[in-house]
Amino acid sequence: MPLPPEFHELAKKVNNWGRWGPDDERGTLNLITDDVVRRAAGCIRSGRRFSLAIPLGEDGPMMGNVPGRPSNPKRTMLSLHLAMAKDPESIRFSDDQVFMPLQAATHWDSLAHVSYMGKIYNGFAEGSVDENGASRCGIDKVGSLVSRGVLLDVARARGVSHLEGGYAITPSDLDAALTAAGTDVGAGDIVLVRTGFIQLFLSGARAQYGASNMPGLGTECALWFHERDVAAVATDTLAFEVWPLERKDVLFPVHLLDLVEMGMLQGQNFNLEELSASCAEDGVYAFFLSATPEPFVRGLGGPVAPVAIK
Amino acid sequence: MPLPPEFHELAKKVNNWGRWGPDDERGTLNLITDDVVRRAAGCIRSGRRFSLAIPLGEDGPMMGNVPGRPSNPKRTMLSLHLAMAKDPESIRFSDDQVFMPLQAATHWDSLAHVSYMGKIYNGFAEGSVDENGASRCGIDKVGSLVSRGVLLDVARARGVSHLEGGYAITPSDLDAALTAAGTDVGAGDIVLVRTGFIQLFLSGARAQYGASNMPGLGTECALWFHERDVAAVATDTLAFEVWPLERKDVLFPVHLLDLVEMGMLQGQNFNLEELSASCAEDGVYAFFLSATPEPFVRGLGGPVAPVAIK
Amino acid sequence: MPLPPEFHELAKKVNNWGRWGPDDERGTLNLITDDVVRRAAGCIRSGRRFSLAIPLGEDGPMMGNVPGRPSNPKRTMLSLHLAMAKDPESIRFSDDQVFMPLQAATHWDSLAHVSYMGKIYNGFAEGSVDENGASRCGIDKVGSLVSRGVLLDVARARGVSHLEGGYAITPSDLDAALTAAGTDVGAGDIVLVRTGFIQLFLSGARAQYGASNMPGLGTECALWFHERDVAAVATDTLAFEVWPLERKDVLFPVHLLDLVEMGMLQGQNFNLEELSASCAEDGVYAFFLSATPEPFVRGLGGPVAPVAIK
Amino acid sequence: MPLPPEFHELAKKVNNWGRWGPDDERGTLNLITDDVVRRAAGCIRSGRRFSLAIPLGEDGPMMGNVPGRPSNPKRTMLSLHLAMAKDPESIRFSDDQVFMPLQAATHWDSLAHVSYMGKIYNGFAEGSVDENGASRCGIDKVGSLVSRGVLLDVARARGVSHLEGGYAITPSDLDAALTAAGTDVGAGDIVLVRTGFIQLFLSGARAQYGASNMPGLGTECALWFHERDVAAVATDTLAFEVWPLERKDVLFPVHLLDLVEMGMLQGQNFNLEELSASCAEDGVYAFFLSATPEPFVRGLGGPVAPVAIK
Repeated sequence: MPLPPEFHELAKKVNNWGRWGPDDERGTLNLITDDVVRRAAGCIRSGRRFSLAIPLGEDGPMMGNVPGRPSNPKRTMLSLHLAMAKDPESIRFSDDQVFMPLQAATHWDSLAHVSYMGKIYNGFAEGSVDENGASRCGIDKVGSLVSRGVLLDVARARGVSHLEGGYAITPSDLDAALTAAGTDVGAGDIVLVRTGFIQLFLSGARAQYGASNMPGLGTECALWFHERDVAAVATDTLAFEVWPLERKDVLFPVHLLDLVEMGMLQGQNFNLEELSASCAEDGVYAFFLSATPEPFVRGLGGPVAPVAIK
Repeated sequence: MPLPPEFHELAKKVNNWGRWGPDDERGTLNLITDDVVRRAAGCIRSGRRFSLAIPLGEDGPMMGNVPGRPSNPKRTMLSLHLAMAKDPESIRFSDDQVFMPLQAATHWDSLAHVSYMGKIYNGFAEGSVDENGASRCGIDKVGSLVSRGVLLDVARARGVSHLEGGYAITPSDLDAALTAAGTDVGAGDIVLVRTGFIQLFLSGARAQYGASNMPGLGTECALWFHERDVAAVATDTLAFEVWPLERKDVLFPVHLLDLVEMGMLQGQNFNLEELSASCAEDGVYAFFLSATPEPFVRGLGGPVAPVAIK
Repeated sequence: MPLPPEFHELAKKVNNWGRWGPDDERGTLNLITDDVVRRAAGCIRSGRRFSLAIPLGEDGPMMGNVPGRPSNPKRTMLSLHLAMAKDPESIRFSDDQVFMPLQAATHWDSLAHVSYMGKIYNGFAEGSVDENGASRCGIDKVGSLVSRGVLLDVARARGVSHLEGGYAITPSDLDAALTAAGTDVGAGDIVLVRTGFIQLFLSGARAQYGASNMPGLGTECALWFHERDVAAVATDTLAFEVWPLERKDVLFPVHLLDLVEMGMLQGQNFNLEELSASCAEDGVYAFFLSATPEPFVRGLGGPVAPVAIK
Repeated sequence: MPLPPEFHELAKKVNNWGRWGPDDERGTLNLITDDVVRRAAGCIRSGRRFSLAIPLGEDGPMMGNVPGRPSNPKRTMLSLHLAMAKDPESIRFSDDQVFMPLQAATHWDSLAHVSYMGKIYNGFAEGSVDENGASRCGIDKVGSLVSRGVLLDVARARGVSHLEGGYAITPSDLDAALTAAGTDVGAGDIVLVRTGFIQLFLSGARAQYGASNMPGLGTECALWFHERDVAAVATDTLAFEVWPLERKDVLFPVHLLDLVEMGMLQGQNFNLEELSASCAEDGVYAFFLSATPEPFVRGLGGPVAPVAIK
């Protein structure tokens, strides 16, 4: 079953291939200019910081049922109180190592994470991703990732603690959340879309968070981000887009539009709860956001420990 | 052979145990207040960003000869062009995972990384670190880590491209570099000490960088940092302190003073080359620094992708 | 689409649930009695040994495209020439570690590897396999695995160097190979079915071996094995059963019949080439086979280094 | 401090360098001829089998304190009840992967595991082992490993349930155990030396088993094995040789003599308890032993699931 024509039309509207040259591997991150960062710095007023990463450990959101993201980080000791000399007063070292899917916890998808019709972003061949990883558009091509961040608190705007599983966020939802935020979204901004769904994970309902219906972005949102030249979008869910899917004849349309057509990074499992409470309290929904992924060479995704600063 | 009395005297001078309460697990990071961060934001003038992380891959600096840091990150595919449906136009997913020592590349040591005389920072028992990791002072206790950064370019101040292996940086070196920088170092700042030695790694001389004599901080520098209430220090070397050691009767004195006595994070393998060139060019050695480690639960160290912003 | 009635009929014919009690987790391995092993020892005449394992390394057959078996073993050093004393004459140690899918190379599937209609072998609930592994029928329940082995060299019996991708082996093929072998197959025997397809892997055509059409056992073979009370079956292919599948309305029927219904271990990626040449030369197709899997606690599969002895 | 002359004399006596040619990488395994295996098969009388492997799991004997063997195997799911089709009756797959030091549990040391004075077995340069592993004498050079096994039950011969930590087994102990066994030890045999110490591990006293004084082979035993042309030796301890060491001026003499000088594989963490009980009961201490290690390419050691058959 081929993709429906209306999907192709939407794809064409948001397509950024060639916009930053035929060799570009960073997509909408090109929109984060020095000017954008300088203005973002103006959002730092109190110096208050918000960590948006979930802890990396065996109690993470992975339940073994998502192909490609089967397990949570496992950390083991490499040395434990290792003495360098027999002297009982001497220094002892403890070191550890980890084993984890790169997309197990708070992370950015690289632009090479998905393909369709033989292509990834900017028209690079699907085959540029092989068993050695992504030779094009890997997470190591991102470089630094800091910009102005804007929280679109869709859950709060809709008056619920969290959106229900299966709820597809619409452009109207984004408009309403933006109005409630009392700010704007412009070129190079990073948008954080809050569903509140990560409360399930934080409260221990791991299986409900990670292995069932979840709210998320709907197909039309891609155009909303494209029209505003957003640099990157992150959510507080595992799948980024809504699950179950909106229609049966297009699988993961948001992934296709964001990653392949627009070349826009998607972030997942961002913990927006504390930030949301602060924004609701002070009415300020724009902030400085520092969210550089770990530069895994040829990585399909990268863990990130994002910090919002107001 | 017990530790010499002069070491114990120095240890006493820099000791911060109890300073932030008996349960404190963050040490000098407590010095990074909202005010400090707000002032740090004032360092962002052009919006120019500098990535300080080295790539995470099999060509990293680990040569197999450091107990506890034996190997470089190994990344493998979890799925490659995995189709969710038979439709040839349908989306295909590629995901990966990694296996790495937490201190293999650009990282922060946690305060639990070393112990001596049965204790880690703040007097917590060495036994609080066991085969399950660090129940006290793990890297997950750091939270966000952003502040004002100051580059002390010791190599440049000494007129060399890089310090020689075995060179122990002295407080005078730090003074000279600070004078050359034309700025000050104050409470809550993060100091980046440049030796230039990472050029060896960047130019492909991995074995020379990672498995031989290296320049680094000398014992007396701990007091210099303590007197200025520095929040954290990072270098562009693998071992942080000088190797071979300055004296045979104290093993890794800098680690003991910084991590155990002061409770001050140490960063290693920070690539300061591009930042150094910029500072030399514009004469500005202070900047906003975002360097939050990945929050591995009970981790003895944490990878970080630091970004300096001017 | 429910499974077709003829599949259910066949399933009923080969079903062994309850045959060795309601708590049995070893299935047809129960058929390997002391007597069977004693008779197997009688097959050792010359003392010549044949290793049937493929090497465990990064050049293994995994191409990243099989969910659940995404990558080849990655081995890294844990210590390299680690000296325990400064004495230059002193001992130095080198150690390593590995990171691998348990079914990456030569292995046995555990009986818990697949389920359908909510059950694994012996009627245990599918839920007995969870994110902690297989609490029932894990590979650690196998214990020792030695018996008489019989090579059914289907490729040779059909006069080809290897069967073509997509070729489904039939009971007639097994009969013909057994006739050519000039022996019998009885209770407790382990049958090795040779397709010759592993020649592709051995000659470097990894992608053709691991990621395309492959020959393998057809559905009806399950009954053939059941009627003879075979204890376990292994092949020289990656998927064990034929690919593409014989019919669209039953996915992986051989896995369902062997593992779930019969409780019979399946072995994959056994290198039968040298053994095949020997059997063709001396006309003796029965031998002693030692093939105990590594006892991973709750493992879904287990690597094995099988040895045939004539 | 150079090695004492008496050590060098002993080393010369047991040295096998060049005995099987200048390129030999298998050492005393060359002594296992077809004849030896054929005779070994004669030891199979009842068909009774004994598994000698300990389970591979997180409760293994590693306590984090042995450099190079820091942790126990960690297994995680790669897929859990993964459906290949939406049909609720359809097959579901579960797969897993593991992350483990190769010498974490029951294993053979490869001949490349240790070096001294710049050499490994057969005079190959120490540098033949590098960060890519052992290009010479790796565990992948072992091939099949089956032979006649003889249990020397030193604990039982000494009338104790297990030898005490620190007890160094002497040639007289081996003689006494052999006399009690009522058999002989000849060329190509594999000797299993029982201390009973693994009872500590089996009873849950992991720390006592893995991180403290342990009984083991003393230096002079190497000559005893050499004189009888033993092919390989395994024990039921973590370190193989006694700990603490017999003398301060030679570190790990048994490792040096066995692995480097003789080229004889050492096995560790073999569970000999059930086998010991059987031998005591029927008075038969010789058996067929199948103990082929997993063939990790360039591996410094290899897990093994040994089976003794009587």
